Amino acid sequence: MRMYDIIEKKKRGGELSEGEIRELISLFTKGDIPDYQMSALLMAIYFKGMTEKETSILTDAMANSGDTVDLSAFGSGTVDKHSTGGVGDKTTLIVAPIVAAAGGIVAKMSGRGLGHTGGTVDKLESFPGFRTSLSADEFVSQVKRCNIAVIGQSADLAPADKLLYALRDVTATVDSIPLIASSIMSKKLAAGTRSIVLDVKCGSGAFMNTPEAARELASAMVSIGKSRGRNTAAVITNMDIPLGHAIGNALEVKEAIEVLKGKGPDDLREVCLTLSSVMLSLSLGISESEGMALAKDTLESGRAHLKFSEWIREQGGDESYALSPEKFGEAKYKLPLIAKSGGYIASTNAEKIGLAAAKLGAGRETKDSVIDPRAGIILHKKPGDMVSRGDVIATLYTEKQHTLAEAEAMLYESLVMSDSPIEKQKLIFGIIGG
Amino acid sequence: MRMYDIIEKKKRGGELSEGEIRELISLFTKGDIPDYQMSALLMAIYFKGMTEKETSILTDAMANSGDTVDLSAFGSGTVDKHSTGGVGDKTTLIVAPIVAAAGGIVAKMSGRGLGHTGGTVDKLESFPGFRTSLSADEFVSQVKRCNIAVIGQSADLAPADKLLYALRDVTATVDSIPLIASSIMSKKLAAGTRSIVLDVKCGSGAFMNTPEAARELASAMVSIGKSRGRNTAAVITNMDIPLGHAIGNALEVKEAIEVLKGKGPDDLREVCLTLSSVMLSLSLGISESEGMALAKDTLESGRAHLKFSEWIREQGGDESYALSPEKFGEAKYKLPLIAKSGGYIASTNAEKIGLAAAKLGAGRETKDSVIDPRAGIILHKKPGDMVSRGDVIATLYTEKQHTLAEAEAMLYESLVMSDSPIEKQKLIFGIIGG
Repeated sequence: MRMYDIIEKKKRGGELSEGEIRELISLFTKGDIPDYQMSALLMAIYFKGMTEKETSILTDAMANSGDTVDLSAFGSGTVDKHSTGGVGDKTTLIVAPIVAAAGGIVAKMSGRGLGHTGGTVDKLESFPGFRTSLSADEFVSQVKRCNIAVIGQSADLAPADKLLYALRDVTATVDSIPLIASSIMSKKLAAGTRSIVLDVKCGSGAFMNTPEAARELASAMVSIGKSRGRNTAAVITNMDIPLGHAIGNALEVKEAIEVLKGKGPDDLREVCLTLSSVMLSLSLGISESEGMALAKDTLESGRAHLKFSEWIREQGGDESYALSPEKFGEAKYKLPLIAKSGGYIASTNAEKIGLAAAKLGAGRETKDSVIDPRAGIILHKKPGDMVSRGDVIATLYTEKQHTLAEAEAMLYESLVMSDSPIEKQKLIFGIIGG
Repeated sequence: MRMYDIIEKKKRGGELSEGEIRELISLFTKGDIPDYQMSALLMAIYFKGMTEKETSILTDAMANSGDTVDLSAFGSGTVDKHSTGGVGDKTTLIVAPIVAAAGGIVAKMSGRGLGHTGGTVDKLESFPGFRTSLSADEFVSQVKRCNIAVIGQSADLAPADKLLYALRDVTATVDSIPLIASSIMSKKLAAGTRSIVLDVKCGSGAFMNTPEAARELASAMVSIGKSRGRNTAAVITNMDIPLGHAIGNALEVKEAIEVLKGKGPDDLREVCLTLSSVMLSLSLGISESEGMALAKDTLESGRAHLKFSEWIREQGGDESYALSPEKFGEAKYKLPLIAKSGGYIASTNAEKIGLAAAKLGAGRETKDSVIDPRAGIILHKKPGDMVSRGDVIATLYTEKQHTLAEAEAMLYESLVMSDSPIEKQKLIFGIIGG
């Protein structure tokens, strides 16, 4: 294989062979292909795309470039859920215990947050004592005991993807559907579950800005999963508006517990039930409507909340926080965001809200930033809501008083008001695959 | 300037600003932009192109990235001729003395050959004693004395182009019209002549394979030259068939001298007169038909041959070889290429013939290869000619006997025969600019 010929072939719109793709990934992972050739190929892929077959092989090659998790001992019930990343997305904290309590097996790796999006691992670490690193034996044994474990992502999971992503990030070649799809799915394939449910976020707070783009990405990922023998489905959900009211780690955990207790915001509850129904459908081999009935019953009966407490305890966390979330306490400083005029909230910019929360201490600006679990934002009003001048639209929480003014300005900036009523936005744009 | 933003802008089809392009080239030349970002940009340029304005600025920025030659002391008559490279292209050896003898000023840098194309500097070095490196003072003083000097290209001429070309060469981004045009023209601008005539070769032995592609490249280069205040024109000439009969350094010099003596092959003579007429038109401010009349008279009167001898002598070469070219002698080994069947020669592949000549010792396979001045090929028959079985189609010359068999096989392979007569190919496809 000459790398030059591979670049030239893709540049002319040709289809790379299985042998070419596998050798390409193998050599690149070993450092035997210079970055300047790989980045030229990535740009050619941006313009010429990849066929379903190429994308499937690329994904598999990346999935097998490092550690892979073998969950075959757990049979066919293992199921993973992956979100493409959003603001205030605490769904894993809710769907994982619903699915586990209803008989699915949730053996999952999750990421940390960076930039304006949060990470499940950061949220779980709000519980004193919670361990996000388990040995392979500890992980397997916990899943056997209670059907659920969520740990941080192994450093050697799909290293080819890690290298490629770092290069794409600095060469403006991130926004290519086959490259995004293969990047996400390579980690999901390596993580070893039999079923995979993708929550493809769409809107101003997400990577995909339109339902069409989200649908294209969702289809590409479902096609990869199926071609590699995994039950795969995708739910396309709105991320123009942050999900629920809370943004920030302990704030989101508290909100998730509210939902598990049968309360909490409607939008969050609806998205979580939909995701759970698809996960149960794939993992238990039942229909989506059966999955929905089972998910609702599991949530309303309190079994999901019990499973949540068990999970936190089994993984070393202080269970009392799961039962009495007020124990998380409140950040040292808070500031109300006051409506400067009356009217309807027309829109907010989820990305800007996420960045404001990060500024307050809820997220990382660089990989080494330290997170304040109690920092963040509660949105009391969301798009579609009417407000009067002087109403409290949101509350900002932080341990670092000096960040309040800037975060407040960012929030005002993200806010668009209207004099006339605003139609509520759609929450779920569709389900693909399954 | 963030390189990421530049790549993204070009990827979306945007026009880079003058400031962006100049900073880009300045930083890249200093080594402050990593190759992997530049190669991604080059691939984006391959797909999205560059506007005339962008191409003009890029060329100027590269031209000014290193040494530039100041020929302003010679007034407006300075003229350069550049060929995009072909097989058996000895035109500089003929047009330079024609133009100089007719009053134009030929102060020129030329390249060495690599791969299947020859270089003028290599051909000139066939003359014992000829010096292709002159100091700036020697160069200027020789041009003052006799209107002509041709030296090897300065190592620091357009270093940005050198760096970019090396990267394009390994990332499959060579074949982009704005990048080819700016690469060639950056060196021509830096070389400082007031007028520039481009000989754009087209056909199997050239970089551009069709007249349309050659015309596009020619227009782009003429447009760059004019936008930078140079009189610029391009002649599009056939390179499906090697020019003249001789391929190889001393063999080509001998053929060039034949033309200067008023004899030699018609195709070579016609291309040289056309190039000379355009060069004279631009440098003396006369019409192309006046230029043609002047060129013909200069050639037929013997003044061009006298100027050639003077040039060789002034630049340290043994003038007696220019007057009695049989002094070059013959290579130690020669082999006739015999027609295996009768018929018409339908086509030859100029690139393969060039590679066969290089194999015999006439060209370089790598930068460090040593050239045998007397190695090469004489084509006795060319496309359109009728041959009988047993006729000698060509003669191979080499100092290395063991190369004969392989070169012979390459020549047989390049030959396509036909039973019916073949129409003679067009020699000159058009003139652009002027």
